[in-house]
Parts: sequence; C-alpha cells; structure tokens
Amino acid sequence: MSENTYRPGLEGIIATETALSYLDVDQEQIVIRGYDLIELANTVDYLKVAHLLMEGNLPSPSEYHQFTHSLAERQAVPDEIFAIMKALGPHPHLMDSLRTALSGLATFDTSLSRLDPQSTAEQAMTLLARMPVIVANSYHIKNHEAIVMPSPELPYAANFLAMITGTVPDDTEARAFDQLLTVYSEHEMPNSTFTAIVIASTLSDMYGALVGAVASLKGTLHGGANEAVMRMLLEMKTPDQVEPQLLAKLARKERIMGFGHRVYMKKPDPRAMLMKDSLKRLVTTKGHQELYDMCVIGETVMQREKGLYPNLDYYAAPVYYLLGVPIDLYTPIFFAARTAGLVAHVREQYGNNRLFRPRVRYTGPRNLHP
Amino acid sequence: MSENTYRPGLEGIIATETALSYLDVDQEQIVIRGYDLIELANTVDYLKVAHLLMEGNLPSPSEYHQFTHSLAERQAVPDEIFAIMKALGPHPHLMDSLRTALSGLATFDTSLSRLDPQSTAEQAMTLLARMPVIVANSYHIKNHEAIVMPSPELPYAANFLAMITGTVPDDTEARAFDQLLTVYSEHEMPNSTFTAIVIASTLSDMYGALVGAVASLKGTLHGGANEAVMRMLLEMKTPDQVEPQLLAKLARKERIMGFGHRVYMKKPDPRAMLMKDSLKRLVTTKGHQELYDMCVIGETVMQREKGLYPNLDYYAAPVYYLLGVPIDLYTPIFFAARTAGLVAHVREQYGNNRLFRPRVRYTGPRNLHP
Repeated sequence: MSENTYRPGLEGIIATETALSYLDVDQEQIVIRGYDLIELANTVDYLKVAHLLMEGNLPSPSEYHQFTHSLAERQAVPDEIFAIMKALGPHPHLMDSLRTALSGLATFDTSLSRLDPQSTAEQAMTLLARMPVIVANSYHIKNHEAIVMPSPELPYAANFLAMITGTVPDDTEARAFDQLLTVYSEHEMPNSTFTAIVIASTLSDMYGALVGAVASLKGTLHGGANEAVMRMLLEMKTPDQVEPQLLAKLARKERIMGFGHRVYMKKPDPRAMLMKDSLKRLVTTKGHQELYDMCVIGETVMQREKGLYPNLDYYAAPVYYLLGVPIDLYTPIFFAARTAGLVAHVREQYGNNRLFRPRVRYTGPRNLHP
Repeated sequence: MSENTYRPGLEGIIATETALSYLDVDQEQIVIRGYDLIELANTVDYLKVAHLLMEGNLPSPSEYHQFTHSLAERQAVPDEIFAIMKALGPHPHLMDSLRTALSGLATFDTSLSRLDPQSTAEQAMTLLARMPVIVANSYHIKNHEAIVMPSPELPYAANFLAMITGTVPDDTEARAFDQLLTVYSEHEMPNSTFTAIVIASTLSDMYGALVGAVASLKGTLHGGANEAVMRMLLEMKTPDQVEPQLLAKLARKERIMGFGHRVYMKKPDPRAMLMKDSLKRLVTTKGHQELYDMCVIGETVMQREKGLYPNLDYYAAPVYYLLGVPIDLYTPIFFAARTAGLVAHVREQYGNNRLFRPRVRYTGPRNLHP
C-alpha cells in the first residue's frame, strides 16, 4: 500500500488499537476481551458481558451483585427527558427520539465535562441503566401510551422486555431477549463505534459520542437493516412467496437487507446462527413455524443466487417479532445493547487519545478567482 | 506504508475524495471549490461562499437573490424546539442545547428519510436558514431571556449578530462577523466533517450527520478551543501579564489553546492572519487596544518558545469578544458557519457512497473461557 493509496470507506485500514474486541475472520470467532462471544452468549447473561466490557472481567458473584445494584440505583430518568420526547414531531423515527433524549440527558449529568476514568465509569453506568427506560418509553410516547417505569424485581433483560410489551416474559422469552442483547453488545469497529471514538477523540463528552453513534446506527446500511428485514418478511407473507419475491427483487437489482457483511465476506456470521437456534426454540413454544421456514428458504436462495450468508440482523428480526417487540424498536434495542461496548470504546479512547483528523484527495478545480 | 501500518488518529491517511475543499500546505492555500478562502473572505460575503459550497458556483445576482429569499422563507423554527431547549438541565453547555435542538428538529422535517439530491438540497437550506435562530436563542433560553425572531430587513450575518446582541451592528461589525462566518465555513476534513460523512455513509439522514458533528465540534481539541482562548486572555487581564503567565503555563506543561494545527504544522494559518487584521480594524473603532496587544505578545512568545503559530481560534476569539458575543456562543457560531460546508460534504457522500468501516489492531488476550 503506497503512501497515498485511497481506500473508499477505509476498508481494511486499521483505525485504532483496542483490547475490547476483534473479528477473527480466519478462526471465524468474535473475540470479546479474549472470550468467544458465542460461548459467552451460551453460558452467561448480558449483564455479565456488559461487566466484562466495561470493567475488564467477568464478574464474581459479589461484583455481579454490586453491578446490578448500581444499575438499579441509576435508572430514574428525569421527567424533562420524557417531556422532550413528547415535544417531538408527530411521527418520529424512534432512533430520532432516542438520539434527542440522550442528547438532552447529557445536560442533567453534573459530571459531564469530567473525562477522568472514575467519572466516565459512572457516566457509563448511568447510560446503561437508563437506556431501557428511554428506549421502551420512546415507543409508548409516540403511541400516546402511559410512561412505564422499571420494575425493581425483574432482572435487566426481562425488565427491558416487560417495559416494552407490558407483560412479564416467561423464561424462554427472557433468555432469548437476553441472548439477543448479548450478541448485539459489541462487534469491534462498525460505523457506529467508529463514530463514537472519532467524536471522543476531540475530548468531547461520552454522551455526545453516543449521540453520534445513534445517528450512525439509524442508517439503513447499519442498524436500520433489522427493521428492513422484518418488513420484507411480513411483505412476503408465506413460505412459498419467499423464493419468487427474492428472485424478483434480485432481478430488479434491489438490495436485500440482512445478508453479507464487509468483514465476514463469504463466511457465515456466527451470531446469525445463534439467533437461528433461538428462533427455532421460540417457534416450538410460541408457534409461527412458517416464519422460521420463510427465513430458512431465504437463506438458501441468497446463498445459491449470490453466495451471501445471513448476518445477525436477518435472524434477530424474527426473534424480536416472536418476542412481541414492535418493529420500530428493533434498531433502538440494538443500540441499547451496544451501549456496553460503546462506553468501553469511548473510555479506551480517552485513556490513549489521538485526535482523528484524516486527509482527503481533492478532485475539484484550482486557481479560480471571484 | 505496509499493509497493516497503524497511524493513530488516521494522521496522513486519505479518508475520502472531495471536490469541496483542500488544505494545500505547500502553497499555504485553503482551496474552496477552486477558490482561495482568504480571497473569498476579502471579496464576497458568507452567503456567496455558502452558495459556492452548496450549489457549486458563486451566485449570479439573480441566484443570490433567490438563495437569500429561500433562506428567509425557511427561518421559522417550530415552537416545540424552543420548548425542548427550555426543558434541558439548568446550566446546559450551548453545544448540548444546539445538539438537542437539531436532533429534535429532524422530526419536524417531513422529507427526512429522502436522500435524493433535491430533497437533501432543501434540507440543507432549511438547516442553514434555522441555524442562527437556534444558536442565538440557545443563549437567550439559558439566560431566561425572551425568544428573539429574525428581522426580515437584515442580511444573514447582521441578522445573526443582532439576534445575539440585541443591537443592529454597524457596517464594520457586520463585515467582521460576516468574515468570521466565512473563514469558519469550510476546512477540508476536520474531525467534525469526518464525523458527519462517517455517519452519512450508513445512509442515515442529514440531520443526524450534523448532530454528530455538533458533538465532535464541542470537544476542547476541536471547536471548543476558541472559548478556551478567550477565557485565557481574560485571565491574563493585561499585556504585561501575557508573557509571564504563558511561560508559567508552559513550565507546568499545560496545553495552550489556539496554537498549532495538525495539518499546517509549522506554518501560519492564513485564516488567523485575516482575523488578526479584522481585530486591528475593530480596535481602531471600538477601543480595547490592550486586547490586540495581548494577542500579539502571546503570538510572539509561543513562536519563540515552541515554534508554534496561532490558528484561527486564537484570533477569532477576541474578534467575537469585541463584537459583543458571549463566550458560550463562540463554538455554536463556529458550527453555524460550518453548516454550509457540512451539508455539502454530506450530500457529496450520499452521491458517491461507501460505508466507512475500518478495522482495528487487537491488543487484548485470546482463548479465555467463561
């Protein structure tokens, strides 16, 4: 690679060093602080992975107790934030509600301008604690429903899902939702995480870095893909419609969401396979076998026609659906889950900072005069 | 540069192609669509440069008339946005107010999800039109003053300044403020512009891209520097205090804001020299010669001691001050001025998009098990 090689989208360019996570394409492993993400998702819960990301280790029982206790203490969202969400336009995208709420929440954190490790650790806990409350209520506010508060008896993931659906989930549902949060918790350097560390590198505050990440994750080429997948599945209606409709879309050169990934390229996303298993379990208890069948047919067609494998969004979407989560909330929940990884990356950036400031290749005219 | 060379902060890495602007370090020229920014600032006004950035050419008289007319038509900010700013915490940083207001404003734009050139051109005009109203009123709302509305008689820059100070500026003041907006209008690929195009590359909307840029520009290593410069000058109080206080700061290894720039390195920032001239003119009509003298002494000391030249923020800060602009507003005004460049970069990104998704160098452990 010569001095001025330009790679659109910084493809293959190393943007930073991190001890948080790594996509090992050769070994087909998503490494989270040394652990395999899929093994974590199968053996521990989301909050343990959040502790691993944020504190550096899987928690001991007493650390876990303290972590959950500290989160519970920080859940209360100022009423002004709900007022701000209520003042938004009549049909807000819920990622816009989340972005505005987080941006406003910054002004209620009296430690906002302090970037030392202790202050940012507390800001990170506050963000993780409040995210489910903000995300769930963004939906209720948009739909003119009453504000819901977290229940002190429920664990983090079950509480989050209950605030959304209004029903306490059973064990299968709670486990599926927890696992979904876990597989979304961290994924090396996607656009949203990159956005967050680029912002943090100006020594701007952690809330601002996360606000930028919400804006990024909203994009249809990023987090917005899971919503697009579900809308496509619902349009297709039945298993026998999947193949003809996919072939028609491909013939029209439409982009099919939920397939392929820049880094994995021609290999399966192990998170998608985990969600496929989760979907299979949910179908056995909740029905909707046809939804599972549709997904499998779509997977087969896309692999045959384009050599593409499903990514996480493809199998996360029907899992969300069977859990009773409104489609509008798929991307905000992705963001809420990713909070654990994002705050860890922002704190890592503060700890070893260099301002991001690349150059450009200028393609315009020269030597003009007014 | 070998395949996996890692350059912290992407220093020297070409991140994108652009026809908008280029910092030509060899010729010491800031190129804006082929024109020299300093020549533009000396010969045309801010709105002409905004038209150049956004539409591709310096406007003809009829284009200029249409451009200003279209901006005037789009100035009205929904009352809900002021309500949102009033609901923020008691002492918000005005960049947090701006960030939250812009984020909320997105939900009132019914074309938000349309990224075609016509829709984004209109969104860009709306953003440029409303920015002065939002920025000026963020200050009034924080200070429990009445909301001010733009005056239909005044040109863009004079109107902006009048909404801030409550007084219609004289010609010297209006020209100085217009020139300040012009030199802040565009500057190749600083962190905030990079943030905006990184977000836009997910095909997220233009408002979200600009919200991320506000978060970036807030940082003390970026836009926040101009406020820090003014606070330092006010602390020093008199010309005879500048040298001993600067030497004491340097001895304590404190960072002195307003000097040096990653790209210019050991060469003067031509925008700073233009603002120095502007400051000199303002001092002849408004007094405060000691402020000019302090700046010149600081410039001499920093060049002698560290070989560093002043950057734009160093001489923009006292210009703001003599124009009666509250220090809290220095960075928000910088952002408002940069809107013209930012929207042009975002639209350029949409027109030739590739998702930004770099890689990392992993420095953590491997092969751990829960």
